[in-house]
Amino acid sequence: MRLIALLTDFGEKDSYAGVMKGVIHRINPQARIIDLCHQVPPQDVQAAAFILSSSYKYFPRGTIHVIVVDPGVGSGRKIVCLKTLDYLFLAPDNGVLTFIGQKERIERTVEVSNHRYFLEEVGQTFQGRDIFAPVAAHLSQGLELTKLGPGISHIRELEISRAHFSGERLEGEVIYIDRFGNLITNITRDHLKELEGKFPGKKVRIVIGGKEILEVNKFYAQSKPGKPLAILGSSNHLEISLNQGNAQGRLGLDKGEKITIELE
Amino acid sequence: MRLIALLTDFGEKDSYAGVMKGVIHRINPQARIIDLCHQVPPQDVQAAAFILSSSYKYFPRGTIHVIVVDPGVGSGRKIVCLKTLDYLFLAPDNGVLTFIGQKERIERTVEVSNHRYFLEEVGQTFQGRDIFAPVAAHLSQGLELTKLGPGISHIRELEISRAHFSGERLEGEVIYIDRFGNLITNITRDHLKELEGKFPGKKVRIVIGGKEILEVNKFYAQSKPGKPLAILGSSNHLEISLNQGNAQGRLGLDKGEKITIELE
Amino acid sequence: MRLIALLTDFGEKDSYAGVMKGVIHRINPQARIIDLCHQVPPQDVQAAAFILSSSYKYFPRGTIHVIVVDPGVGSGRKIVCLKTLDYLFLAPDNGVLTFIGQKERIERTVEVSNHRYFLEEVGQTFQGRDIFAPVAAHLSQGLELTKLGPGISHIRELEISRAHFSGERLEGEVIYIDRFGNLITNITRDHLKELEGKFPGKKVRIVIGGKEILEVNKFYAQSKPGKPLAILGSSNHLEISLNQGNAQGRLGLDKGEKITIELE
Repeated sequence: MRLIALLTDFGEKDSYAGVMKGVIHRINPQARIIDLCHQVPPQDVQAAAFILSSSYKYFPRGTIHVIVVDPGVGSGRKIVCLKTLDYLFLAPDNGVLTFIGQKERIERTVEVSNHRYFLEEVGQTFQGRDIFAPVAAHLSQGLELTKLGPGISHIRELEISRAHFSGERLEGEVIYIDRFGNLITNITRDHLKELEGKFPGKKVRIVIGGKEILEVNKFYAQSKPGKPLAILGSSNHLEISLNQGNAQGRLGLDKGEKITIELE
Repeated sequence: MRLIALLTDFGEKDSYAGVMKGVIHRINPQARIIDLCHQVPPQDVQAAAFILSSSYKYFPRGTIHVIVVDPGVGSGRKIVCLKTLDYLFLAPDNGVLTFIGQKERIERTVEVSNHRYFLEEVGQTFQGRDIFAPVAAHLSQGLELTKLGPGISHIRELEISRAHFSGERLEGEVIYIDRFGNLITNITRDHLKELEGKFPGKKVRIVIGGKEILEVNKFYAQSKPGKPLAILGSSNHLEISLNQGNAQGRLGLDKGEKITIELE
Repeated sequence: MRLIALLTDFGEKDSYAGVMKGVIHRINPQARIIDLCHQVPPQDVQAAAFILSSSYKYFPRGTIHVIVVDPGVGSGRKIVCLKTLDYLFLAPDNGVLTFIGQKERIERTVEVSNHRYFLEEVGQTFQGRDIFAPVAAHLSQGLELTKLGPGISHIRELEISRAHFSGERLEGEVIYIDRFGNLITNITRDHLKELEGKFPGKKVRIVIGGKEILEVNKFYAQSKPGKPLAILGSSNHLEISLNQGNAQGRLGLDKGEKITIELE
């Protein structure tokens, strides 16, 4: 049976995520559900896209990734279901699958429109309960994607800020901040390799928020407690961190903050 | 096997909810447990009653709804187990089942007093672990309600503020605020139908916190971002919301805030 | 099959805990996982040690307790797996198992070093995903502890502040504060018995933060709402609490605050 992984901005304060699981179990009493995360900042489609992108491939083949971060709920936005070699993705068509579209070969995409697999009464405010949960439950029992609605050829994509070279400098920005205050940037392992390839053997000089960092660490404890450090984090993105501290709090920086790297 | 759904004010900061699940699994290793919500504001019986009321019927038949929001723990308050056609409810007798008593036909209610189904040592501070969890585990394995203790004929009810007509005005108040800052009122779909029936074809005028709202929307995105709107939410209660924003934060309102609706 | 219980400081804001569960299910699709707690304060090894100590024995025999509170991740610190009569504990060797070592007879301890049971690529920042999750999954399927690495004879222990007698006074301190603001001290039921044995029949006088409390209550509601009270909590530690209130907020106290008890 297919595993269901839930990624929402429902938080844990209310029963929204719990109710989704109730609905899933009503249809498939044997369902196996994993909470990927429910604390996406409210309506932050870009944060959800990043979390999904750095997480989905750690799940078993066949997993149904259900994403409900959906500021347009009840409006004309579509709901889509997308199949890759290993996974199904069920999400509003608002760009939250942007990175999946870039990283994976998409085998098929359908618009989710067949009311047969929805709850009987579908409201305009909580379609996580009324549409996403029952559709996921049916998929987990083996329902074919094509039963959900007509095929479509495109999904919406977010305009994602990408790190880029400007002369000899690599310029990026902070795109996500985690619980530990790690500032995760859009500079990836590949960018660093490219920089290294252009200027082999030179030393890095990282500038962010007026601070200078002169190396890329291998692990957090390699730096003195309380000192800012740069590290390739678990998602293969460059992070600015503080050993045993909170870089966001200490440096007073936020999403969108610019970061540059030079070699010298 | 019966599903167990947990609704508590234990939060996620500590291991209280996790320990309850450990105890359940010690008795029933095959138990299936869903977290309905653990973030009820501490000791807020009324909030728990509302969350339960808007959630319970989305669970499979046979689900055991376990509610541990229990300011009177260890005192003389009873623990009750209540059976309706579709569900069991296990809760302190403090009014948290008020709406269940109003909405459902109750087939039987017992006082939970048979120590045989409790942990061996029962303390006075964490009966979620010592009583609720083991009793729920036994129920999930098919234990008959009547084994838990003697039948009782009444449960305690909260005094719930209800919306009501005052002349041509419908008067209500905010009873719950969710993660998104939606202000959920005690005005329901039925109240609005009644108002509409009394004054057919007239336009609504909603006043809350000095703001005026002149229609009831169908979905959040129907309004401009940042503008207050009124909407029939997922629990069939009227909500004051902000498209892509937080109504509570923006309007500076709290639980208990009055709301009035007139037709003109 | 062995149950897996997770205790981490990953929080719920990100997908770290969810990704661990994805990895576990990739290896063992039938895995049963319980979240003991993910809200340990970041890198607070002592808080994790206390939570574990007051929780582990409520889980079924055979449970694998996985603890990922790991400020030294990626550095030279070891990962250990420890077997007691009833449980397995998988944790960084940073003292988080201190109380387990004191309370339980340890049958065997190994250093977890066999890469065969890790993810193929092991990074230096998220070993919860790369090492702890896959090792736990293999253990849940019956893998022998001894396959993980060589036996070791010692684990690191924290220096734990213990309550102690100073003349006729028992001196302790606050070691943990829970969601309800209960101030949990290192004074245990055994300390109180010892005090009672030394001075039978005398009355207690508890002093904390300049406040005086003159009895030990049996349950929260035994005191007036809003009045500080002392109570033997669910972990058999003395707690300072407020009936229907938050003692931490009201008294303005924090971890490390001194408490003394005299009999008079």
